[in-house]
Amino acid sequence: MSKLSNISGFPEWLPEEKLIEERIIDLIRNIYKSFGFTPIETPSVELKSTLSSKGVIDKEIYLLRRALKDSDEKDDEELALHFDLTVPFARYVAQHLSKLQFPFKRYQLQKVWRGERPQRGRFREFYQFDIDIVTRETLPLACDSEIISAIHAVFTALNIGKFCIRVNNRKVLLGLYSSLGLSSEVQKQVISIVDKLDKIGIDGIKKELTSLNLKSHQIDQIITWTELRTDFQNVSSELSKIAVDNDLFKEGVEELSLLLKLIPEDSIQFDLSLARGLDYYTGAIFEVILMEHPEYGTVSSGGRYDDLVNQFINQKVPGVGASIGITRIIDLILKKNLILIESASPSKVLVTVLNEPERPALVKLADKLRKLGIFCEVFPTAPKLGKQIEYADKKGIPYCLFAENDKIRIKDLRTKQETDYSTIEEWIQTLN
Amino acid sequence: MSKLSNISGFPEWLPEEKLIEERIIDLIRNIYKSFGFTPIETPSVELKSTLSSKGVIDKEIYLLRRALKDSDEKDDEELALHFDLTVPFARYVAQHLSKLQFPFKRYQLQKVWRGERPQRGRFREFYQFDIDIVTRETLPLACDSEIISAIHAVFTALNIGKFCIRVNNRKVLLGLYSSLGLSSEVQKQVISIVDKLDKIGIDGIKKELTSLNLKSHQIDQIITWTELRTDFQNVSSELSKIAVDNDLFKEGVEELSLLLKLIPEDSIQFDLSLARGLDYYTGAIFEVILMEHPEYGTVSSGGRYDDLVNQFINQKVPGVGASIGITRIIDLILKKNLILIESASPSKVLVTVLNEPERPALVKLADKLRKLGIFCEVFPTAPKLGKQIEYADKKGIPYCLFAENDKIRIKDLRTKQETDYSTIEEWIQTLN
Repeated sequence: MSKLSNISGFPEWLPEEKLIEERIIDLIRNIYKSFGFTPIETPSVELKSTLSSKGVIDKEIYLLRRALKDSDEKDDEELALHFDLTVPFARYVAQHLSKLQFPFKRYQLQKVWRGERPQRGRFREFYQFDIDIVTRETLPLACDSEIISAIHAVFTALNIGKFCIRVNNRKVLLGLYSSLGLSSEVQKQVISIVDKLDKIGIDGIKKELTSLNLKSHQIDQIITWTELRTDFQNVSSELSKIAVDNDLFKEGVEELSLLLKLIPEDSIQFDLSLARGLDYYTGAIFEVILMEHPEYGTVSSGGRYDDLVNQFINQKVPGVGASIGITRIIDLILKKNLILIESASPSKVLVTVLNEPERPALVKLADKLRKLGIFCEVFPTAPKLGKQIEYADKKGIPYCLFAENDKIRIKDLRTKQETDYSTIEEWIQTLN
Repeated sequence: MSKLSNISGFPEWLPEEKLIEERIIDLIRNIYKSFGFTPIETPSVELKSTLSSKGVIDKEIYLLRRALKDSDEKDDEELALHFDLTVPFARYVAQHLSKLQFPFKRYQLQKVWRGERPQRGRFREFYQFDIDIVTRETLPLACDSEIISAIHAVFTALNIGKFCIRVNNRKVLLGLYSSLGLSSEVQKQVISIVDKLDKIGIDGIKKELTSLNLKSHQIDQIITWTELRTDFQNVSSELSKIAVDNDLFKEGVEELSLLLKLIPEDSIQFDLSLARGLDYYTGAIFEVILMEHPEYGTVSSGGRYDDLVNQFINQKVPGVGASIGITRIIDLILKKNLILIESASPSKVLVTVLNEPERPALVKLADKLRKLGIFCEVFPTAPKLGKQIEYADKKGIPYCLFAENDKIRIKDLRTKQETDYSTIEEWIQTLN
């Protein structure tokens, strides 16, 4: 007998839970499609060198090896499971550049893997659902707004409570830090320190900035800036109060005010403390939090990256995108019962069987129901009807059908009401 | 610059190709649901010991290791990528037994991985789309027929040419081989030899049977049996001609004639040469071939397995199921152009932009279109209209929308016709 328990970090849902995940994935996919995003998929496996190209930490990767490598086998380059969908997408765009129409808009739903220590209790396998827009040469700001609008539409449709899209712009941050006389190397370090605000707090940030040898007036200024948060409508007026004469800063402020005109008005906040850890962001950055479940942290994030694709190809292909952490959201929905589990089956009708000789006719009847668009199943044996009704009830199948001579009797298990019909079509017409 | 080419055996489609794959997956999923199958998903990763439990050859498995394992880290049991969805499903059923309603019917679409030698040119990562029914104690034959009927419904709906579901029954085969006085160990070996008929031919089979030390009259008899193929309607009459007095054989024949009453009449053949290599089948076995593309071999296969789940738990949980090789079918469809590629975008409308100040109003118009169920996108810059129309044309977006004052002009790119409407709703009503 083998060990029968979940492997830590590799979540597995029960059927009624997976039905909810599938429904949510379909909902998000439909919204992405309604914005004109096209599906792509990349293999789960990339060359290790591809995944390392933006300097990812090696220990987050799972490497593959064949259990029994033939002794005469040539050495493959090392293969690894992808840890996100952005790096494989950048590789995909570079590789298929001549075959894509630009601007190219894709969505991509796939599992990603992180080689976390099993003891840490984090997901080591989970779904991400990404959208991105890339183009040749110059990517207009309208694309940043479209990404944010699509993410806004998703969280509105999910209907799992209030959410907030926190927005900032790397140019604003770098412009500000530059105005303090910090080198671009130090600016990057400051960004990754400020990014940890939620984890280490103001005091932690002060400590880490001090260890960078920043002067105390610089540290105080950085801390003051991280406290600026405002409704997105006031972004320009609030930022105009910061009297900093720096071109990059001004460019960032200009981008933010253009963005304001194109994105929804509710549930969006400007937050100067938002930094996002990843190196490759160059303009707008944002993340989504669920106001009623702050302990779940960031459930979606993204931003503008102007120089990611050209790590693979010597051409300018700027992009902007976002990723939604599906598994984390499903985990939240299931743990907090945010969506009512109604059934463990897609069947709408259970066709009951009184005795085996009737089965061939009932199988044909079920086929007819399917052709009329009604999902159904035929009970596989012919026990007492009570047992068959109990099965339907437990699986959340709403109707039982009893075929008697040339009549159809339908029992609605929710109202317990039974009604006779002379044909299947007659019953279907009563459904709305 | 990194290496930019597909890793052999890991297929990757272009966007317009992935749109076709997605459409086909949705079609199959809808059919599975119409039969009352419920989705489940298992992690891509299982313990190596779980995957080995039915005696799989180790070299087909990819093992995982963290790229940077901490020196103080406890040794995990070895993790591996699953190579099919049947073994993980058996583990899932055993693990969640008390939480499932039986009979339990699931569908499962996931990628599987095979650690093939890269030189062999086979898929090393591909999609399988499985259905299975399992229950406690006794699984009625109606379940075998339901699996075959669902697979039949899929290949009918796929509409990619004639197909044939070849059906046989392990009990018939084992009964016949037993009547020749072969031990059960030798019977298994004969099955795996007969399974290779398509690859090694009659002569190859003769040779391998000879090396098993079978007598020449036994070999001749086995060869004669492999030649029996018939329309499924004639299965009983053809098998009754074989005068073998063996209980297992008779049970198999009885099962086949019961099956006949419950499955569709067309595209099904009885084929006594069908053996299926896998050890775990105990009753009905079948496979699907595409008549016009025999070189693609088996595109779906399955059968009855009475003793797979009880490798993990000491209880009787018999099952029957089938697997469809999605990636192989998509590969065929794309290579042979069996489905017309119509577009590289789900958008139905491109909202054109005359000048930037209009954009905020056009973004709102696009939102309205989406709420009315029309997938659309707004061109991200404002170049000459010809360029925008060209973009829509290349992506296969059928309509361009021009908003002029309070009028809407729609250009149908297929007919080149332009029509004015006073409202969006007025145009939508003209669509069927």
